[in-house]
Amino acid sequence: MHAITIPEPGGPDALVWAEVPDPEPREAEVLVEVAAAAVNRADLLQRQGFYDPPPGASRYPGLECSGTIAALGPDVSGWAVGDQVCALLSGGGYAEKAAVPAGQLLPVPRGVDLVTAAALPEAACTVWSTVFMMARLRPAEMLLVHGGSSGIGTMAIQLAKAVGARVAVTAGSPEKLARCAELGADVGVDYREEDFVERVREATRGAGADVILDIIGAKYLGRNVETLAVDGRLVVIGLQGGTRGELDLGRLLTKRASVAATTLRGRPPREKAAIVAEVREHVWPLVEAGRVRPVVDRILRLEDAAEAHQVLESSAHIGKVLLTP
Amino acid sequence: MHAITIPEPGGPDALVWAEVPDPEPREAEVLVEVAAAAVNRADLLQRQGFYDPPPGASRYPGLECSGTIAALGPDVSGWAVGDQVCALLSGGGYAEKAAVPAGQLLPVPRGVDLVTAAALPEAACTVWSTVFMMARLRPAEMLLVHGGSSGIGTMAIQLAKAVGARVAVTAGSPEKLARCAELGADVGVDYREEDFVERVREATRGAGADVILDIIGAKYLGRNVETLAVDGRLVVIGLQGGTRGELDLGRLLTKRASVAATTLRGRPPREKAAIVAEVREHVWPLVEAGRVRPVVDRILRLEDAAEAHQVLESSAHIGKVLLTP
Repeated sequence: MHAITIPEPGGPDALVWAEVPDPEPREAEVLVEVAAAAVNRADLLQRQGFYDPPPGASRYPGLECSGTIAALGPDVSGWAVGDQVCALLSGGGYAEKAAVPAGQLLPVPRGVDLVTAAALPEAACTVWSTVFMMARLRPAEMLLVHGGSSGIGTMAIQLAKAVGARVAVTAGSPEKLARCAELGADVGVDYREEDFVERVREATRGAGADVILDIIGAKYLGRNVETLAVDGRLVVIGLQGGTRGELDLGRLLTKRASVAATTLRGRPPREKAAIVAEVREHVWPLVEAGRVRPVVDRILRLEDAAEAHQVLESSAHIGKVLLTP
Repeated sequence: MHAITIPEPGGPDALVWAEVPDPEPREAEVLVEVAAAAVNRADLLQRQGFYDPPPGASRYPGLECSGTIAALGPDVSGWAVGDQVCALLSGGGYAEKAAVPAGQLLPVPRGVDLVTAAALPEAACTVWSTVFMMARLRPAEMLLVHGGSSGIGTMAIQLAKAVGARVAVTAGSPEKLARCAELGADVGVDYREEDFVERVREATRGAGADVILDIIGAKYLGRNVETLAVDGRLVVIGLQGGTRGELDLGRLLTKRASVAATTLRGRPPREKAAIVAEVREHVWPLVEAGRVRPVVDRILRLEDAAEAHQVLESSAHIGKVLLTP
């Protein structure tokens, strides 16, 4: 088969389309013929050499895909050759075929085409495991999402609205904020022009955000803690603004608040399977009802993965960039 | 009645024994004739003017007491005049009588005398609400308790051991560590001589602590995060070592860990009642079975509250210092 390989870390040109051996499905894995892969920011870090795949994972980039099951490894039940699926991967999505642990497979939701389904697994699992399983966002609470127009942001807006929460987002242009508003965001903050602390405070009559989903890290740590409501929960899933920041524990204590940081990729397979099972139970019905829609920015050829990485690096996209072999 | 008042914030001498009006039980409150009050570190902060009582609470210090119900306010059910109780207070324990929300009352456990029961409510509610309700310590996990010989520390050791967890503690003398070991602590670290990061790492074969209960704050923040295991939970309930510290979000993210900070006193009455109800369900049976024992350092007269504060300030105590009118 062909796959995008990374012979040497570097810029987008480090991504090389090459002929490689087919993956072999191991115990409790299936082989998927890939219809589409989606691009995540973690792929850019991996390309630059900053984010190695966990032990045992494919060396090729790609944390999610859709496609058709082409073969079953030993000890797989509940899935058959020919099933149309999408999947959360630990790597290897930028390829014509991928070996996937059966616990990380999801059926393609009714009403979503096979290629578009590749936009769902990583965003749905990330948002569900953080905003809902960890931070337990409740109806009528306020969620603040940084990067509201990203793949994860567009999913977070829709899921939070579907459970009856209010949503504030930050984004970097009026066009992106308009798209967030279409998806249901109640409050949009252009971070180039406005202060999100002030805007969220106004929108909540001074109470603040109950949950914050953050991709910036250190640069926003102080302002995020300032924005939290009493009993607020800050979940950091990206460090685009650095890793070390000052934490005001006195402020945190007065608010009885918490700061958690997590990644999906590093979790062991049984935790990923538990998340995927919850997503199938709670998120898939919302997708099939049309209340949560995959947001696709554009679809490029897998060979042109370098172009896709340039799009993400320039933050020119809204939602997901997909790659098709 | 008489109570300890604080006419002006200051040192231990700021505590003045004075005649004051009896408190009146409001709706859903009872009047308790106090048998004993216990001294908490928060009382010292209040005496110094750094920790005002929440709105509506008594101005006198004292966050827990035991005694006998002397009168019922309107709308109290499940309690009767003459019942022997102990109680979590928002203030007012250093007095001959205290008005207590009925939701914050607990029966005196079988096998514990009325005076000693004053040592239980604040420690049991603090440890249960943080280590168990928030951080969800599980059997076989490792809990690190800073200040293992304090009132809260001695309770945390016993409760964690009772659920089958392992416990490491820090304390400031061999005598204190010996007492912690008697209560069940598996690992004792003399913080004046040893590095707790190293000692916990050794004791867990490099894995680290699953839960840390911390009273130091900023000064320990970096080392606490370093000590956390994957999926570790740090809960800060005191700031004896300052409020602002550097947080390494990269480290936190790699470990999928969290930092929470909280206080019991500031919580609204319905949350306190929920905690008290859980303590009655989960902790009281362990006390009645003799598996969790109140640890009393000494009993002084309520008029001598200043002396009790000096004891806590010198950290000469192990367990609770009680005051009896």
